[in-house]
Amino acid sequence: MIYVTKKMEFSASHRVYNPNLSDEMNAQIFKKCANKNGHGHNFTLEVTVVGDVNPSTGYVIDLKELKNIIQKEVIDILDHANLNFDVEGLKNIIPTSENLAIFIWDILKNKIPNASLYKIKISESKTSSIEYFG
Amino acid sequence: MIYVTKKMEFSASHRVYNPNLSDEMNAQIFKKCANKNGHGHNFTLEVTVVGDVNPSTGYVIDLKELKNIIQKEVIDILDHANLNFDVEGLKNIIPTSENLAIFIWDILKNKIPNASLYKIKISESKTSSIEYFG
Amino acid sequence: MIYVTKKMEFSASHRVYNPNLSDEMNAQIFKKCANKNGHGHNFTLEVTVVGDVNPSTGYVIDLKELKNIIQKEVIDILDHANLNFDVEGLKNIIPTSENLAIFIWDILKNKIPNASLYKIKISESKTSSIEYFG
Amino acid sequence: MIYVTKKMEFSASHRVYNPNLSDEMNAQIFKKCANKNGHGHNFTLEVTVVGDVNPSTGYVIDLKELKNIIQKEVIDILDHANLNFDVEGLKNIIPTSENLAIFIWDILKNKIPNASLYKIKISESKTSSIEYFG
Amino acid sequence: MIYVTKKMEFSASHRVYNPNLSDEMNAQIFKKCANKNGHGHNFTLEVTVVGDVNPSTGYVIDLKELKNIIQKEVIDILDHANLNFDVEGLKNIIPTSENLAIFIWDILKNKIPNASLYKIKISESKTSSIEYFG
Amino acid sequence: MIYVTKKMEFSASHRVYNPNLSDEMNAQIFKKCANKNGHGHNFTLEVTVVGDVNPSTGYVIDLKELKNIIQKEVIDILDHANLNFDVEGLKNIIPTSENLAIFIWDILKNKIPNASLYKIKISESKTSSIEYFG
Repeated sequence: MIYVTKKMEFSASHRVYNPNLSDEMNAQIFKKCANKNGHGHNFTLEVTVVGDVNPSTGYVIDLKELKNIIQKEVIDILDHANLNFDVEGLKNIIPTSENLAIFIWDILKNKIPNASLYKIKISESKTSSIEYFG
Repeated sequence: MIYVTKKMEFSASHRVYNPNLSDEMNAQIFKKCANKNGHGHNFTLEVTVVGDVNPSTGYVIDLKELKNIIQKEVIDILDHANLNFDVEGLKNIIPTSENLAIFIWDILKNKIPNASLYKIKISESKTSSIEYFG
Repeated sequence: MIYVTKKMEFSASHRVYNPNLSDEMNAQIFKKCANKNGHGHNFTLEVTVVGDVNPSTGYVIDLKELKNIIQKEVIDILDHANLNFDVEGLKNIIPTSENLAIFIWDILKNKIPNASLYKIKISESKTSSIEYFG
Repeated sequence: MIYVTKKMEFSASHRVYNPNLSDEMNAQIFKKCANKNGHGHNFTLEVTVVGDVNPSTGYVIDLKELKNIIQKEVIDILDHANLNFDVEGLKNIIPTSENLAIFIWDILKNKIPNASLYKIKISESKTSSIEYFG
Repeated sequence: MIYVTKKMEFSASHRVYNPNLSDEMNAQIFKKCANKNGHGHNFTLEVTVVGDVNPSTGYVIDLKELKNIIQKEVIDILDHANLNFDVEGLKNIIPTSENLAIFIWDILKNKIPNASLYKIKISESKTSSIEYFG
Repeated sequence: MIYVTKKMEFSASHRVYNPNLSDEMNAQIFKKCANKNGHGHNFTLEVTVVGDVNPSTGYVIDLKELKNIIQKEVIDILDHANLNFDVEGLKNIIPTSENLAIFIWDILKNKIPNASLYKIKISESKTSSIEYFG
């Protein structure tokens, strides 16, 4: 079994707050991440899949094909979007990286031909990351 | 003369559009950067100053002092902000990295003790950057 | 379960040698790492914790809180220190990255609220790293 | 148990194609990677070994020794080589990163003193990687 | 005046040798870079242009447009190519990074609308680079 | 004219203080950088030289030759050293990066065959750098 990882990026904005809580509670919990007009990041997304090497190609999956799947299913939806307003499946979810990882896992889990989705990793900055294994 | 550079980051959102143009013109010129609800980046800011080495310290300027000046004068204003709505001096300016560089130059140009501001460099992503020398 | 990682840095000096061995043996085993006056590194520390997402925040742990814990418990003790002389808990230990990882694990293992410590990773350079899972 | 990783690089060229297939099939499967005269990469190789800390050195394995083993057994063979023609053990293998990882595993698996080989990771670019655990 | 830089990559192979010299002389001058079957790199290309900010867009040049020009004029020609055999304009030139920089300058110097080409920077590895200002 | 840059690293320790000042003054000016037992960094050194391309090699200078010169003249002296005690030419100098850059310039300025030394750049961390042009 070989693990294959593709790294891509998307630029998005979000406001991290819980609409069921008061503004004061949101400010206390989320601090400047709850600023009313939102802020943004270059999010780094790493998708890892696992499978056997196909002896006629030497690939588990062609990385160009994996890139195309992630581009179409995930990046086209999230890039240059406001994660609070613009993404159908995120509308009732606090758009933290944790919840984004679960959201992306659910999109991709049945979309990888001849291999299994193994891990979703999201970084909001050079010094932090979130990993989800389903 | 020695050139001293400090690199810092801020996370902000922006919508790149010209309010004097129609929505159609904005979409044609700025494409997805003009999306209505904005998007965001981790902006990297590099500030370069130039001066002589002080023989009693071996420094042009203490990098901790330079960091504190940039933090107070620039990062505290731009970090976790929406550049279209939240920053007083940017309100009538299209918030591109080019205009941000000029804005930051004007803030810092007289704030560096014992050295001269030399360059402002801003990167919106790992593959692009803007440099301004005043 | 979601894995959350925070990366931080500290700058320290150390001399890698075993005081129970002769100078000749130390030079033979540790080579220039045993140089008498020490040398130094920017150490990169990555702390990974694991837990469930809190539905009211969307976080396993607020990364700012995790950063504050690591800063107070680890970075404030190790940064700008000489690892042979300045750190109480390291005084009888050869200050290799391996032993540093175990030392930091023991400090943090009971300090993470609502999540479990999963991994300590230390890099002395861009081309090497040590990982410890407790 | 501590995991120790050394990262090294080699520059090589390859043509990704299956000699048992027609030129048309190769072009369809491998696209520009099958270009007749080959192309190249700076390959990044990360070797992870696992073992116990030796109390008299504080090391699992001296990283300089691990580097020397990888240099002699792998880098000297692959660096500045054409992977289709110049490497004895790769001659009947499609030189993808997947197959390279298996090839390097087999070289190193019995060559690490006092520790076990745990993982081979190869990156052809900043945005892709292959991992193999034997 | 604002300087705008776009960074892109291409993967290519080359053999660095002078066909007017003997094999022995080539081996002595270029060492393993002259290996008969060639080797390869991920080349990093940074193109810097300089111009005034257009007040109606806030841009010197739209970075997406700059990217498209570099892609069409340079990357499509050099990516996944063998620089000794596959590129028309390089056929009588030793394909060092120095000569590549001059080659790319000549391609792009009159292709940048509303701005001037300022610098071509090429890196064959993380530790080396070539810069050419025309 | 082409500019050629080689990046190398060295690991060293230093204590930043002025022996002509009191301990209190040193603590006030240099803060934790003046800690008695010193601290350390992985210093990144970038050496840029400038010259014409030699038509028979396609090089300004062979990067392997430039690397060997820097290794012998600079890295062998500074790597794994304590900059306050172990380096002959630094003994009466506060070992800041500014003074290191001047020290390295003076070593290398007449040592580059067929090219001129153009710049010395030193980084103590990922977020700061010093540049000196002689």
